[in-house]
Amino acid sequence: MDTELIDRLAQPGTTKIVFLIMDGLGGLPTPGGRDTELETARTPNLDALARDGVCGLLDPVGPGITPGSGPAHFALFGYDPVKNNIGRGILEGAGIDYPMTEKDLLIRVNFATVDRDGLVTDRRAGRIDNDTNRRVCRKLQEGIRLQSNVPFFFEPVKEHRALLVLRDEHLRDDIEETDPQKTGKRPLPPRATMAEAKGTEAVLMELVKEAGRVLADEEKANMILLRGYAKYRKFPSLTERFKLNPLAIASYPMYRGIARLLGMTVHPPTETVTAEFEALRAAYDRHDFFFVHIKPTDSRGEDGNFDAKVKVIEEVDALFPHILDLQPDVLVVTGDHSTPAALSGHSWHPVPVVLAAKTCRPDRVERFGEQDCILGGLGHLPMVNLMALALAHAGRLEKFGA
Amino acid sequence: MDTELIDRLAQPGTTKIVFLIMDGLGGLPTPGGRDTELETARTPNLDALARDGVCGLLDPVGPGITPGSGPAHFALFGYDPVKNNIGRGILEGAGIDYPMTEKDLLIRVNFATVDRDGLVTDRRAGRIDNDTNRRVCRKLQEGIRLQSNVPFFFEPVKEHRALLVLRDEHLRDDIEETDPQKTGKRPLPPRATMAEAKGTEAVLMELVKEAGRVLADEEKANMILLRGYAKYRKFPSLTERFKLNPLAIASYPMYRGIARLLGMTVHPPTETVTAEFEALRAAYDRHDFFFVHIKPTDSRGEDGNFDAKVKVIEEVDALFPHILDLQPDVLVVTGDHSTPAALSGHSWHPVPVVLAAKTCRPDRVERFGEQDCILGGLGHLPMVNLMALALAHAGRLEKFGA
Repeated sequence: MDTELIDRLAQPGTTKIVFLIMDGLGGLPTPGGRDTELETARTPNLDALARDGVCGLLDPVGPGITPGSGPAHFALFGYDPVKNNIGRGILEGAGIDYPMTEKDLLIRVNFATVDRDGLVTDRRAGRIDNDTNRRVCRKLQEGIRLQSNVPFFFEPVKEHRALLVLRDEHLRDDIEETDPQKTGKRPLPPRATMAEAKGTEAVLMELVKEAGRVLADEEKANMILLRGYAKYRKFPSLTERFKLNPLAIASYPMYRGIARLLGMTVHPPTETVTAEFEALRAAYDRHDFFFVHIKPTDSRGEDGNFDAKVKVIEEVDALFPHILDLQPDVLVVTGDHSTPAALSGHSWHPVPVVLAAKTCRPDRVERFGEQDCILGGLGHLPMVNLMALALAHAGRLEKFGA
Repeated sequence: MDTELIDRLAQPGTTKIVFLIMDGLGGLPTPGGRDTELETARTPNLDALARDGVCGLLDPVGPGITPGSGPAHFALFGYDPVKNNIGRGILEGAGIDYPMTEKDLLIRVNFATVDRDGLVTDRRAGRIDNDTNRRVCRKLQEGIRLQSNVPFFFEPVKEHRALLVLRDEHLRDDIEETDPQKTGKRPLPPRATMAEAKGTEAVLMELVKEAGRVLADEEKANMILLRGYAKYRKFPSLTERFKLNPLAIASYPMYRGIARLLGMTVHPPTETVTAEFEALRAAYDRHDFFFVHIKPTDSRGEDGNFDAKVKVIEEVDALFPHILDLQPDVLVVTGDHSTPAALSGHSWHPVPVVLAAKTCRPDRVERFGEQDCILGGLGHLPMVNLMALALAHAGRLEKFGA
């Protein structure tokens, strides 16, 4: 279904929608086991929600496709994840709230260590601390001289990560990444993948060479690796598209950045799930759509720590009554993608979802878990359709056609 | 899936397909309940069909989208409901069997009452009777003088509703509706929403002014409100697309109109479900596709009368053996959309469907109801795909590809 149809039907209203996103929620059993992390966790509150609401399984991008966090969150918010796929550079820029302009080419920079022969010995420059990162960025900013005179800006992000912004409307993002992916190899050249990007290639070649010169005396961060090139793109906001007044409550820069790209108000960072839920309560009167992002489910999945992911889910469930007390008109609990501990990374498996509202049609799901959700009334559907369902149950979509 | 693929594969044949469409069939429980109208109804015959056939859930337009009757029926007959969305004007025109031409702009007219200051006091002119409607239409037809000389035709529909046809190939339907939606307000001007429609705006401005002049001495119907503008569009018929020879048995003008737009033969109106089923039997030898439309399920849902909707479903079930006796090769029972009594209107919830044919693969559904259909072999699919399944089970679709 064309996502633009929803834009035409969306109406403003006074109802409230809460999206509780447990990052990487979907899982797998440990070898020989039968239950996933979510199924193993004791979740009486989420189970009660599953009984009252309607359940299903969401494909973030499509069957078999393992999504990055960017496309997965775009799908959650009703933006086609393929048409709106954006480079990591924009996510980094949005994550640090960098004032991007339509002329910008955004590039994620990893500081790296190279030896005397130019071979990479550490792709993360020993994970230099944030102070060193800031110092090195300033050094690049002041030391690099480009014959092409393209304005450039190095912005520290965290540890070994920085953002490079090149500001010129003629630049293209059709450039190969320079990270060789292995130590003992030379950084790759930033080659154009299309003829139209030859000019950009020349600028980047010069810039990388200059960076090597400027950083030559650094012990660890003596080279830069470029990846995630992205020309800036402006997206229609959730307010423009769906007449929502959204608030994002998320502690990690990338999710805050995605929220900003989609025009959400972004709450100041909080440290714990408790603090996030308190932030939700405090701001509840001032917004009508709430994106509450829980990161540790994904982190523990990435760690390959099944038990720790189970524990995070149980902690969220224990705190869940704080959300229930608000009695939102529509309450959605799901993930952006699966991160099974058994795979220590994102996966393509569909994500369990429960949607609760007064207008839900009953299904027979009694517990919130992947196997139960197979039998849910929402069925198995593309994640991009979730927002339409949430808006419908919030009474925010007009009838289509006569 | 591209709907046009079916057209290429469809073959003529001697098999018979019956679509029994219970308008607004899908429902919701009453507050606190667990069973919908269909699940509450005692339906031994439909349950037996569900056991023998294959069940599923249909999304008329897409998840979360509440369809009007037009798009929902287009989807039932295998026409993309978004690409083929048409204005109310065409549905009204088709409903009264008005001989539309390719040059026509069709507009639904509501007669209204305005006070001395031109403020609307009754948006339906006290629901004038059909005789008054006919008289007022004639008065407009004879009294209005247009400088632009565009041919126009006022056709009575029912009560306060009429059809206005403007016949000129340059006219556009990108015009704002003039119904202010509230009493105490002035009718809105028929403004062009695109530059190309400025000429149409001028014609309509003049016509509305003239209508006010001609109707000034009327007590109730002294103004017209314009809505549902639609340029006439010709659709490929079910015969052209699927090699079917279809008959529509429906008592309400709009459904008869939709059937006509899609090239169906339309049976004279009948009053009761029994009469509709008798009409089916009488015409059974002369057609191979039968659209039998049952309106009261929707009407009782719109009334918010759960028990009355249950009763209608039970009545249809009791009469159902009349259809079974004909032993159609493919028998489909579904709705065009959901009309839960709990919402007193159309809704976005998927519609239960059962398809029975000798070639059905068994599933485990034992009863015809929404929760059972979740587990059916057809799964959860777009309504527009139903026709392909019906044709396939009727042996009417060739193999695709070598």
